[in-house]
Amino acid sequence: MADTVRLAVIPGDGIGQEVTAEALKVLSAVLEGSGTTVATTEYDLGARLYHRTGETLPDSVLEEVRGHDAILLGAVGDPSVPSGVLERGLLLKLRFALDHYVNLRPSTLFPGVPTPLADPGEIDFVVVREGTEGPYVGNGGALRVGTPHEIATEVSVNTAFGVERVVRDAFARAAARPRKKLTLVHKHNVLVHAGHLWRRTVEAVGAEFGDVTVDYLHVDAATIFLVTDPARFDVIVTDNLFGDILTDLAAAVTGGIGLAASGNVNPDRTAPSMFEPVHGSAPDIAGQQLADPTAAVLSVALLLEHLGHAAAARRVEAAVSADLARRAAGQVGPRPTAGIGDALAAAVV
Amino acid sequence: MADTVRLAVIPGDGIGQEVTAEALKVLSAVLEGSGTTVATTEYDLGARLYHRTGETLPDSVLEEVRGHDAILLGAVGDPSVPSGVLERGLLLKLRFALDHYVNLRPSTLFPGVPTPLADPGEIDFVVVREGTEGPYVGNGGALRVGTPHEIATEVSVNTAFGVERVVRDAFARAAARPRKKLTLVHKHNVLVHAGHLWRRTVEAVGAEFGDVTVDYLHVDAATIFLVTDPARFDVIVTDNLFGDILTDLAAAVTGGIGLAASGNVNPDRTAPSMFEPVHGSAPDIAGQQLADPTAAVLSVALLLEHLGHAAAARRVEAAVSADLARRAAGQVGPRPTAGIGDALAAAVV
Ligand SMILES: CC(C)[C@H](C(=O)O)[C@@H](O)C(=O)O
Ligand SMILES: CC(C)[C@H](C(=O)O)[C@@H](O)C(=O)O
Repeated sequence: MADTVRLAVIPGDGIGQEVTAEALKVLSAVLEGSGTTVATTEYDLGARLYHRTGETLPDSVLEEVRGHDAILLGAVGDPSVPSGVLERGLLLKLRFALDHYVNLRPSTLFPGVPTPLADPGEIDFVVVREGTEGPYVGNGGALRVGTPHEIATEVSVNTAFGVERVVRDAFARAAARPRKKLTLVHKHNVLVHAGHLWRRTVEAVGAEFGDVTVDYLHVDAATIFLVTDPARFDVIVTDNLFGDILTDLAAAVTGGIGLAASGNVNPDRTAPSMFEPVHGSAPDIAGQQLADPTAAVLSVALLLEHLGHAAAARRVEAAVSADLARRAAGQVGPRPTAGIGDALAAAVV
Repeated sequence: MADTVRLAVIPGDGIGQEVTAEALKVLSAVLEGSGTTVATTEYDLGARLYHRTGETLPDSVLEEVRGHDAILLGAVGDPSVPSGVLERGLLLKLRFALDHYVNLRPSTLFPGVPTPLADPGEIDFVVVREGTEGPYVGNGGALRVGTPHEIATEVSVNTAFGVERVVRDAFARAAARPRKKLTLVHKHNVLVHAGHLWRRTVEAVGAEFGDVTVDYLHVDAATIFLVTDPARFDVIVTDNLFGDILTDLAAAVTGGIGLAASGNVNPDRTAPSMFEPVHGSAPDIAGQQLADPTAAVLSVALLLEHLGHAAAARRVEAAVSADLARRAAGQVGPRPTAGIGDALAAAVV
């Protein structure tokens, strides 16, 4: 079947540029000869555009991006731009505007990969982080700013509609996995209103998934188990902020954010989904070919899976796994970003 | 100097009963012959009172408790009581009513203590968690509950007054420590209003503490460093929810919540401060003498320090440290809760 994937590419800031180049290299290589071609449109968004125009994501660009099958994003954020401007004006704006309500973050400890844990066990779980609600909605404000009477609020907004759809997605994923286990993470003993909505929703949707075992953990306890017994997790479903925290920790115990991929998924396909490494723009090492493009490459695997190219996705994952094993065995030394990309591209053909 | 410490004791639920008994044993022992006596008033609060009367913390009891010099609390929470009722109606009510704005949680890796980390380094930091604001204020609500149109909100409230006083306390603690380093943890790229209030406050107060090095981490990145490089931390200051999450993780990497102590401190001494282990009521092992009372005993050390008995506090810490070293050396096997308490009490005299 001959088809074309229309891919919007947003390399963004810092190491986003370098890792995206390698991710695209691997994407082309894995699809070579498959009959599927990739037509990329690159968008120069991030700190440069902001400094040039003061804009982060012009409406016209958002509409153009919307016309693609998927988005590949590198990283967003630069010390020259006030904190939050690019994160909220570009990254979160894309997630919200394109209704990426499933923020999918798998955590697998690949064989041989160094982990800070003494006895990690077999780690293989996926966090389904809600992507369009919670404390990320930008529904806060401040009064009497800069005075001793300042008051600043942040509102977490949670709706039955928003919680149910992500919980349903998480259950479907759990049902399709061998262990069929779902853990809800929240803090319903303190955040009672949001927490109870999440809890009731998991109970109600769970009734439709009789073969999925359901577990609950407060977010504080979840961080404990992520370091003492990460193997216990299969699918975690949680809100936007807790998911942000847990997935960085999960990345740390599975070899670092240099390896952690993510998909901002719109399961209803009413807009393109977006794939990006969990790591940030790492301005301190940008432009030096020091970044590991593996997380970006694994994000390409998630992209391929989402677009129905499961076999290609498996090839990318296998290439990464083999490359990491070679590192562990000392068969390859430190390589520049492009060196790792070249090796992975050669391995997926 | 002969004096009397009027101590309100709230053993609470589950293992709270057992560990509090041992903590009191150690407290009596360490003060024996010092001229200081402890006069305890025990309050039967928690699940039992709730089932008997429907109350969690009657106003009259709160007023009585207020008349004490300090409070020792075991643990709160029971599966027979709806989630949040005891936590908010008793534990958080005490923290808020008695203005425990400094929730002090030291994390030290005692020699020989097993940790899930392969290479922990020297861990010795303290988290100053704000205790009276943030998402813990109970300022949320829900609309159309139980319908497909339900919306649930949770509001994080942050004031200049509330943030400044806890930041000031944290700086003072950092200035008194050898490394003199303070790390603010927040998420100011997303929670911009609250985050910028915290950031500006740390900047402003920091100007008065020229010898303290100031660092900032997003909460997600902070969880990474807690497992990859916990030795980097000295004093962490953060909001109520982030502090809750970080201190459970910090406890996990320093040997588990069985060892983590905390103080809910009112530095202005307008009301008694409250000392409690970080762990919960652990109903699954309650009443079986299986709980480790060490966290409760270390909370007694914080209590003694707060009341000006620094030498006694050091003796309690030294006894715990020696006991943990004996465990590590295999010189003592598993002991019942009271066995550990007896050993520590004998060691502090
Ligand atoms: C950059 C930031 C806004 C973002 C988030 O908090 O979601 C990042 O931490 C992530 O996890 O993708
Ligand atoms: C029981 C709960 C309300 C409490 C909290 O969240 O503060 C506990 O987790 C703690 O850390 O003391």
